[in-house]
Amino acid sequence: MRKIMWFCFALTVSTAAFGQDLRGAIEAYEQAHQKEIVANLVAALEFPAVAADEASIRRKADYLKGELDKRGMLSEILETEGNPLVFGKFSVPGAVRTLLLYCHYDGQPVDSDEWQQPDPFQPVLRDGKLSDSTKVLEIDARRKFEDDWRIYARSASDDTAPIIGLLTALDALKAAGVMPTSNIKVILDGEEEAGSPNLVPAIERYRDKLGADLLLIFDGPLHQSNRPTVVFGARGIMTIDLTVFGPRVPLHSGHYGNWAPNPAMRLAQLLASMKDPDGRVVIEGFYDGIDFTPDDQRVLDEVPDDLGELKRTLGFSEADKVGETLQEAIQFPSLNVRGLQSAWIGGEARTIVPDRATAAIDVRLVRETKPDDLYGKILGHIEAQRFHIVSEDPDDATRAAHARIVKVIRRGSTSAYRTDINNPIATQVVSAISAVWDGPIVQKRTSGGTVPIAPFIEVLGFPALGVPTVNFDNNQHSPNENVRLGHFFDGMVTFAAIFTM
Amino acid sequence: MRKIMWFCFALTVSTAAFGQDLRGAIEAYEQAHQKEIVANLVAALEFPAVAADEASIRRKADYLKGELDKRGMLSEILETEGNPLVFGKFSVPGAVRTLLLYCHYDGQPVDSDEWQQPDPFQPVLRDGKLSDSTKVLEIDARRKFEDDWRIYARSASDDTAPIIGLLTALDALKAAGVMPTSNIKVILDGEEEAGSPNLVPAIERYRDKLGADLLLIFDGPLHQSNRPTVVFGARGIMTIDLTVFGPRVPLHSGHYGNWAPNPAMRLAQLLASMKDPDGRVVIEGFYDGIDFTPDDQRVLDEVPDDLGELKRTLGFSEADKVGETLQEAIQFPSLNVRGLQSAWIGGEARTIVPDRATAAIDVRLVRETKPDDLYGKILGHIEAQRFHIVSEDPDDATRAAHARIVKVIRRGSTSAYRTDINNPIATQVVSAISAVWDGPIVQKRTSGGTVPIAPFIEVLGFPALGVPTVNFDNNQHSPNENVRLGHFFDGMVTFAAIFTM
Repeated sequence: MRKIMWFCFALTVSTAAFGQDLRGAIEAYEQAHQKEIVANLVAALEFPAVAADEASIRRKADYLKGELDKRGMLSEILETEGNPLVFGKFSVPGAVRTLLLYCHYDGQPVDSDEWQQPDPFQPVLRDGKLSDSTKVLEIDARRKFEDDWRIYARSASDDTAPIIGLLTALDALKAAGVMPTSNIKVILDGEEEAGSPNLVPAIERYRDKLGADLLLIFDGPLHQSNRPTVVFGARGIMTIDLTVFGPRVPLHSGHYGNWAPNPAMRLAQLLASMKDPDGRVVIEGFYDGIDFTPDDQRVLDEVPDDLGELKRTLGFSEADKVGETLQEAIQFPSLNVRGLQSAWIGGEARTIVPDRATAAIDVRLVRETKPDDLYGKILGHIEAQRFHIVSEDPDDATRAAHARIVKVIRRGSTSAYRTDINNPIATQVVSAISAVWDGPIVQKRTSGGTVPIAPFIEVLGFPALGVPTVNFDNNQHSPNENVRLGHFFDGMVTFAAIFTM
Repeated sequence: MRKIMWFCFALTVSTAAFGQDLRGAIEAYEQAHQKEIVANLVAALEFPAVAADEASIRRKADYLKGELDKRGMLSEILETEGNPLVFGKFSVPGAVRTLLLYCHYDGQPVDSDEWQQPDPFQPVLRDGKLSDSTKVLEIDARRKFEDDWRIYARSASDDTAPIIGLLTALDALKAAGVMPTSNIKVILDGEEEAGSPNLVPAIERYRDKLGADLLLIFDGPLHQSNRPTVVFGARGIMTIDLTVFGPRVPLHSGHYGNWAPNPAMRLAQLLASMKDPDGRVVIEGFYDGIDFTPDDQRVLDEVPDDLGELKRTLGFSEADKVGETLQEAIQFPSLNVRGLQSAWIGGEARTIVPDRATAAIDVRLVRETKPDDLYGKILGHIEAQRFHIVSEDPDDATRAAHARIVKVIRRGSTSAYRTDINNPIATQVVSAISAVWDGPIVQKRTSGGTVPIAPFIEVLGFPALGVPTVNFDNNQHSPNENVRLGHFFDGMVTFAAIFTM
């Protein structure tokens, strides 16, 4: 019966008309059930589900498994070496494909003192974005909720709202008598905010259950324009610590300054050798293999970044010139000095030649740059600057044998991933979302940050697409995390569009 | 009678023969009075005379005034805005010159827990340099003291031993019936280890009392060869903090790395622009005016530094190439990065583009380089690197107007001083010391470090010479400060030679 209903839509109306009807149907359901939908969200936010709190995590996992069951899914708890995964499968007779939906049910750790509410796990409803003029509203007393109202709680946007949103979208489709066109599998991660350390082996272990045509990642915020957004990839990361050595112990800068080699200056010279004055990396081959097709370029150009406004907000007048725009820049690997330290500054400064100087570096990777390869190029560059590379603090013989000594420690890496901008099934997702919303949607070829799930995408072996739905200003990873209800409700429309594409 | 005795020596024997006789006379006195001399030293070390301890400082000042009185000096306490100066004058009928002797009677602050004795102000006698095999000896039980024995106490070498030594030298000369040839004035500083903040105004206030032909500074250790040493100058110092600004707040290095300018990299580039790979400053005019006469060069070359051994000890294989040798290097101003800081390293590192990066710099000055002039050259160099210089954290308008912003803070400066290597009276001192000791003496054209008394030398307007006498390994400014008794006794011979030159 549901299958027949779906055929009616698909065969008799245009995509755009279907999209508008679908949106109307989902919004009608949402309007009729606001109190229940918000109550479901609040209930899921009341678990102190921080990755380190195993008991709360397991209670939330069991609770969410129950929510999957209610939607007629075949669900189970998948045990891992760490927190459990919650898995569910919704089979559609005659489905044209299978979608695997990834969310995480853990939230960032909290520092309750910095929150403007007594408990980050007791959700608070406000009539707008937290400010002096917004009021706290009684959640239980409301039947109707306005789009600008927000729920404040840890994991509200990151990433509980999308979980409740996708389940509500299934409820709304069912109520409208519309059957999804895809089999839907859901996998909910319980330790994403701890870096998903057990996800890759778990995915390998449960590989047989997870087969699909596309992985959809329902995590992260919309583009800052708050337009519907899809994300084709994420940069990876590799971190490297460089420590340059001077004298064995700090020396009196009067007695030895000008004579004992200064490790802070030598570190500065080494770092300076890696970039030109415009911020472009000059290490040979660092940007090899990166190229944009005309389609890529169009997608990059269409992202509605207001770079002038962004620079004003961030407080600088001139960006590095790795790309022409922010979107272009993040298509390239980065080399970022994230920390510097040598001896002391300010009131603690002492008149010494320091014994060592350290730079902490992160290198963001893109699909074309493999960590080992890039690391090799960085080491080659350091050697070309006449530095002797060691992996431990130098002993006497090493100090006697080499004028410039640097300890290089690589602390691990996470790969990048990126789905081709013209991937057919990704293109279908873009079309489906476009059909329910007016105006262009934002397509991000790569997001700049790194997600711990990239390695599991490699294991799965099928393409992945990020579909964020929550508000950009959600204070993700900060105190006073929130979700704007209008975004929460609109997310359901987006999810329903994907499920019925 | 005494005056006549002096004439006998001066007119009838050669300088060298006089020197040997004098040394014999002083050593005979020292041998005969060891118990009393050591007791005098111990008594002076029992005051907890740290500059911040005003009550103890004043007790020690009063005690030392009494010791000056005992030697027939006209003495007084000279009040300052801080700790008092102790002043004494010993007039010699027919004196050919007046010598002003500078010592300080305060010591470095102590951290008693790090000392190998219960109380740094309860002197301990050891039968050698502190080690597993040296023993503590009962001071009071001894009548004879061996040269290798050491007294451990705060201010033992720095700078109480020279005070007791110069007074004992007067006692010994009196016992030998030898009159000094110079009027001798003594000024004892009570807050040198706190930077002598009140010395310059005090010197201006008491200028009429302090007239002399030469200032002799009885402070600091001998050259590490432990040869008799004279020091013609000391470098000055100026400290500068450079803070380069990036985005207003630290940014996510994934979202913005490659695009938001990185202040740590820009600071590295700025620092790197200041020196060549061999450590020579390339700021235009930085080394202007520095030149060595053949006499200067000879003096520099004669300093018996074992640079190979020094590099092995300090743990590096190649020195900066500002000069050919350590002694040459410290004739030039230095530019030393004494501290670096930006965001975090190690376990605390975060994947951010830092908002700022700071370098703490000290610039050691020489007589030819005036602080204001050198500072102007540094600022000019920074501007030539296209940096906009500010003196406070930049506001929005400044951030919007300038791509590269650096806050430059100059924290004050102390001038260098240097007496010409061929200054006639300084040459007499060198000859007098040479006459009492076998072998060459070490002449340091400039010591690398800075002494807070340099500005008062400028006020006094007459030449100055450092005559250190204590052992190089005295742990000055560290726990377990000590003076080797052989050096303490030999210092008296050196002082007597100067007083009778």
